[in-house]
Amino acid sequence: MISSDNKKKMTDSWFSYLQIQICKSFELLEKNKFKFSRRDWFKKNIKEGGGTSYLLTNGKIFDKVGVNKSTVSGRFPKRFRKNILGAENNGKYWASGVSVVAHMKNPKMPAIHFNTRFIVTSKEWFGGGMDVTPSHKDKKEEKIVHDNLKKICLRNRKNYKKYKKWCDEYFFLPHRKEARGIGGIFFDYETKDWYQNFKFVRELGLAFINISNRLITRKKKLKYTKKDKEKQLLKRGRYVEFNLLYDRGTKFGLNSGGNTDSILMSLPPEAKWK
Amino acid sequence: MISSDNKKKMTDSWFSYLQIQICKSFELLEKNKFKFSRRDWFKKNIKEGGGTSYLLTNGKIFDKVGVNKSTVSGRFPKRFRKNILGAENNGKYWASGVSVVAHMKNPKMPAIHFNTRFIVTSKEWFGGGMDVTPSHKDKKEEKIVHDNLKKICLRNRKNYKKYKKWCDEYFFLPHRKEARGIGGIFFDYETKDWYQNFKFVRELGLAFINISNRLITRKKKLKYTKKDKEKQLLKRGRYVEFNLLYDRGTKFGLNSGGNTDSILMSLPPEAKWK
Repeated sequence: MISSDNKKKMTDSWFSYLQIQICKSFELLEKNKFKFSRRDWFKKNIKEGGGTSYLLTNGKIFDKVGVNKSTVSGRFPKRFRKNILGAENNGKYWASGVSVVAHMKNPKMPAIHFNTRFIVTSKEWFGGGMDVTPSHKDKKEEKIVHDNLKKICLRNRKNYKKYKKWCDEYFFLPHRKEARGIGGIFFDYETKDWYQNFKFVRELGLAFINISNRLITRKKKLKYTKKDKEKQLLKRGRYVEFNLLYDRGTKFGLNSGGNTDSILMSLPPEAKWK
Repeated sequence: MISSDNKKKMTDSWFSYLQIQICKSFELLEKNKFKFSRRDWFKKNIKEGGGTSYLLTNGKIFDKVGVNKSTVSGRFPKRFRKNILGAENNGKYWASGVSVVAHMKNPKMPAIHFNTRFIVTSKEWFGGGMDVTPSHKDKKEEKIVHDNLKKICLRNRKNYKKYKKWCDEYFFLPHRKEARGIGGIFFDYETKDWYQNFKFVRELGLAFINISNRLITRKKKLKYTKKDKEKQLLKRGRYVEFNLLYDRGTKFGLNSGGNTDSILMSLPPEAKWK
């Protein structure tokens, strides 16, 4: 059996590798004319790790895209422990993951979110997902997203239906009675069969690159109006509401001494409210 | 001694009166060329009350200003009861109040927030305050705000220093280690001497109208640049963060079956993040 220490090393280095692949692929979409800038950060207690943030703003494709990787450890504040599986007793955790949020210049393109993580408390598990937030209806786009995610799940004997439903339930704004977007997949607490889960998480990471490329490439020449842009900015307002009111990743970050600029990199460059 | 029922009637009708005064005064600042639109809403259970929202957008002075009044009752959800004074046992509450958030077109003018409320659980108390969020430093403006609020407090034998400190502590963004604005006053749980508190709350309401008028009038002819506007939009991003991550009024509203559009009327028409 593989030791917890080795699991940490393997996931940590996978997430670092994936982060670079994502950035390279996105820069290629920008024809290498716009580049990510890199920023490293450390937790106050440097022994508890930190992360690396890549940010590209005001490109031709991307209005703003953040690609974050972090590996952190420590103890959760007492009030927060009951919310985390296996942290009830001493609050100790180790966590590593990659997360990406891409806000597009062209409002015909959807915002795209992806995250995968490995977390160790007294339990250990994988979690993550990918979901898409268009401001314009596009049946074909929906099909591309869902069909591809379904394929990855089936290939890895994951319950696609369950993951899809989980995503729909998670990315829902109860105060608006609205879905954030068109969904995708979401999973958490995958504690069993570590190798299989790790393989799934790796494949999902690579699939994210492919799906994003496809969604962007098929729309990059589409014209749009001021009204289309306005619609996108209002949709982004909802995105902000979700991330600040409900998102568990945001809460996890702010409660684990994470880096505020990196955590809130998910916020759009501009948003509107009526 | 005045009955709880009469206290409810008196505060409710004061808040209705004040709301209209505020709207009239703001329309006058717009030279009556831009008018508020009114929207009434009711809780699902119509016996539990509702509110009236006045909204003015895209004026010459105001980019967006919401003036909300609501009078609601009911029982808090169980998980929320421990957060509310006197609601621990059965969760019953009655609440009435007015709140105003004004986002200005001219970025040299500060955003202004005001709220007063009377809440009844197994206890009863007044709360509220006024605070100001400029995106441009203006020492004279700060003095106008603080001097006036101090005057109202002193005249009503209220502890200005305590209220000012409370405001600074309340409107602080821990994740940014930043104050939201330049403060003002904030108070809550004023349970004693009902008549005196009600008088204070009424005077504060009228003072809010005067102070706002002064802050707006002295700046309405100021020129500004695109860069000034940009700075304001970034400051508004912080405003959004505060309201969605921390604001107790937002949480109270969403947990008491309030009207989402009215609760989130405090969000700016447009905001940016770097």
